[in-house]
Amino acid sequence: MKRRDFLSKAAIAGLAGGTALLAACNDDTKKAEGGKGEANQAAAPAQVGKTVHWKMVTTWPPKFPILQTGAEDLAKRVEVMSNGRMKIDVYAANELVPGLGVFDAVSQGTAECGSGSPYYWAGKDPACQWFSAVPFGLNAQGLNAWFYSGGGLDLWDEVYGQFNLIGRPMGNTGVQMAGWFNREINSIDDFKGLKMRIPGLGGKVIARAGGTVVLLPGGEIFTSLERGVIDATEWVGPLHDLRMGFYQAAKYYYTPGWHEGGSCLDVMFNKDKFNALPSDLKAICEAAAAQTNMQALCDFEAQNGAALKELVEKHHVQVRKLTPETLADLRVLAREVVAEEATKSPMATKVAKGFNEFQKQWGSWADVSSRTYFDTMSIGV
Amino acid sequence: MKRRDFLSKAAIAGLAGGTALLAACNDDTKKAEGGKGEANQAAAPAQVGKTVHWKMVTTWPPKFPILQTGAEDLAKRVEVMSNGRMKIDVYAANELVPGLGVFDAVSQGTAECGSGSPYYWAGKDPACQWFSAVPFGLNAQGLNAWFYSGGGLDLWDEVYGQFNLIGRPMGNTGVQMAGWFNREINSIDDFKGLKMRIPGLGGKVIARAGGTVVLLPGGEIFTSLERGVIDATEWVGPLHDLRMGFYQAAKYYYTPGWHEGGSCLDVMFNKDKFNALPSDLKAICEAAAAQTNMQALCDFEAQNGAALKELVEKHHVQVRKLTPETLADLRVLAREVVAEEATKSPMATKVAKGFNEFQKQWGSWADVSSRTYFDTMSIGV
Repeated sequence: MKRRDFLSKAAIAGLAGGTALLAACNDDTKKAEGGKGEANQAAAPAQVGKTVHWKMVTTWPPKFPILQTGAEDLAKRVEVMSNGRMKIDVYAANELVPGLGVFDAVSQGTAECGSGSPYYWAGKDPACQWFSAVPFGLNAQGLNAWFYSGGGLDLWDEVYGQFNLIGRPMGNTGVQMAGWFNREINSIDDFKGLKMRIPGLGGKVIARAGGTVVLLPGGEIFTSLERGVIDATEWVGPLHDLRMGFYQAAKYYYTPGWHEGGSCLDVMFNKDKFNALPSDLKAICEAAAAQTNMQALCDFEAQNGAALKELVEKHHVQVRKLTPETLADLRVLAREVVAEEATKSPMATKVAKGFNEFQKQWGSWADVSSRTYFDTMSIGV
Repeated sequence: MKRRDFLSKAAIAGLAGGTALLAACNDDTKKAEGGKGEANQAAAPAQVGKTVHWKMVTTWPPKFPILQTGAEDLAKRVEVMSNGRMKIDVYAANELVPGLGVFDAVSQGTAECGSGSPYYWAGKDPACQWFSAVPFGLNAQGLNAWFYSGGGLDLWDEVYGQFNLIGRPMGNTGVQMAGWFNREINSIDDFKGLKMRIPGLGGKVIARAGGTVVLLPGGEIFTSLERGVIDATEWVGPLHDLRMGFYQAAKYYYTPGWHEGGSCLDVMFNKDKFNALPSDLKAICEAAAAQTNMQALCDFEAQNGAALKELVEKHHVQVRKLTPETLADLRVLAREVVAEEATKSPMATKVAKGFNEFQKQWGSWADVSSRTYFDTMSIGV
């Protein structure tokens, strides 16, 4: 999913209104965060002072699994850790502001915080995109290492700071799928003339490969695919894709998601409001964001496997790998696209430089360690 | 590193006293967690009630990078989030109790919490080992998904609950290296007669391959390798290995760490003491653990790359991959070892079953997603 899904209220309404999507909603993902009222033998809870009451606006439909429920989890964590001194009411897209309005709403302080994914705000500064995902870029583990230990968060602070915002990772989809296709993709040439719903940088790559990029709100994708208005679409991964019912409309499910190798979801805070918090509440917000970031990735990782199994075993979906040659050709085009994007603002140039340097250094280690171990570990699966 | 490093005070002293290791200590890793005293315009901090003052005992030498400093980071996070209502004094190995005494000290309440790695306590219940790492088992991402979203933490609660303990992940080394070798390893046969310092389950595999497993405290490894008392040793990864100076004593640095594909470090709480905390402090401890868990893995991931570069470019270390055939042969032996270990206690049987089921399901997804993307992403590095 990318920001162009959110270019209008209709887009959000489409997402929220899709029956397949509604079927995806899962109340079970709201986890209890620990009860109240047990014996307090050690320390009195914190209840002095005024209560901080904040609003969080998101880009997600109500109950959207892991993403909207993750935002709600963050709010619950903050409330429990602060013993009720800080409450955050979470509003899904359109409940308070439209999905596309989240950035401005938080920037201006209409809401104190919000959630989405940084690349939705490429129109504010193209630099935002590197904090979500760029084609053939860092995966979730690499992205988190860049953020927390490689200077990424400092760059993010600089970019969002231009808009009176502070952004923090609050989840990651893990490696997405390349998408659903009504025809086989055996080489880069098979993208020629392909009508594909794929927004953002991925779409620019497909366009460069000769495809026709179609932009559709979430709620219209299934029907368009079923009726042949489009030949292919990307979405997220097995968990979310299963619930969209794409397997009923397309035969081939391709991997890997070269365009989104681990898309970061964020929480953004109004900078003035955040800076006015006392140190303990600031730290609680930071910790809740990090905890939710970890939890969301784990939920995707744990649940995608079962969904993939259901897609294959129950719905007879054919999982295919894009060939190394196809991926190599896409990567050449992606590098052109990303390099061009990096020239579009001074911050984009700076962030792209930091990202690329980190990917090179971390990648050389990941190549020796994680990649090699994956090969070893996977043989026996 | 495994529990047998910690079988005596001498082992810990050896680790702590090694000059190479002392050179590894880095005060910069102590990060500021946010200042105090800024304007509190929104809510008064929490300072009512008695202060909770806890002791944390660890298995690590003072200032041991990422591991001991991570434990100190956790304590700082808890203090800031609780606005000083909860303070944890952190003691390195031997400062209050010996490294091997941590489990009992926390179980009995001599200290309220502690840090190490679960497999150090295999002697208490062999089931503990699955929460750290088993040969060819889940990597860091899989292990975290199992813990937080696949039932792993429930099993951990059950195992540690037998000892009045609660355990939580508080870091992960990521994929370790297979070790330093004075001779080439081209097949499983090359382990025959090899004198290798490799404790734990990995050691049992090497013994089954015909190697001679030598147990040595950390401080004696370098000298033993240099003098030919041993032919090979495993340790952690580039960051820690560089500072141990192994490159001066062995020529070949093999990957991947099939025996520790992502070893989990933990924080353990005395269960009675933890349960007596008010809900907010419980949640703060949980969040601080999760945040530290993420940070430690990111620190390893971000810093290992630079260390590996230094090893290769400055010290001319030869990085070699174990051949797929060697790894396949090791895996056969590892499965025998792990299966035997799973029969050694009722909880080990139960935990191994849960672990294996999760690895199978998650692995099928990781194979399609993360592994495939790694191949794609890495081509360009």
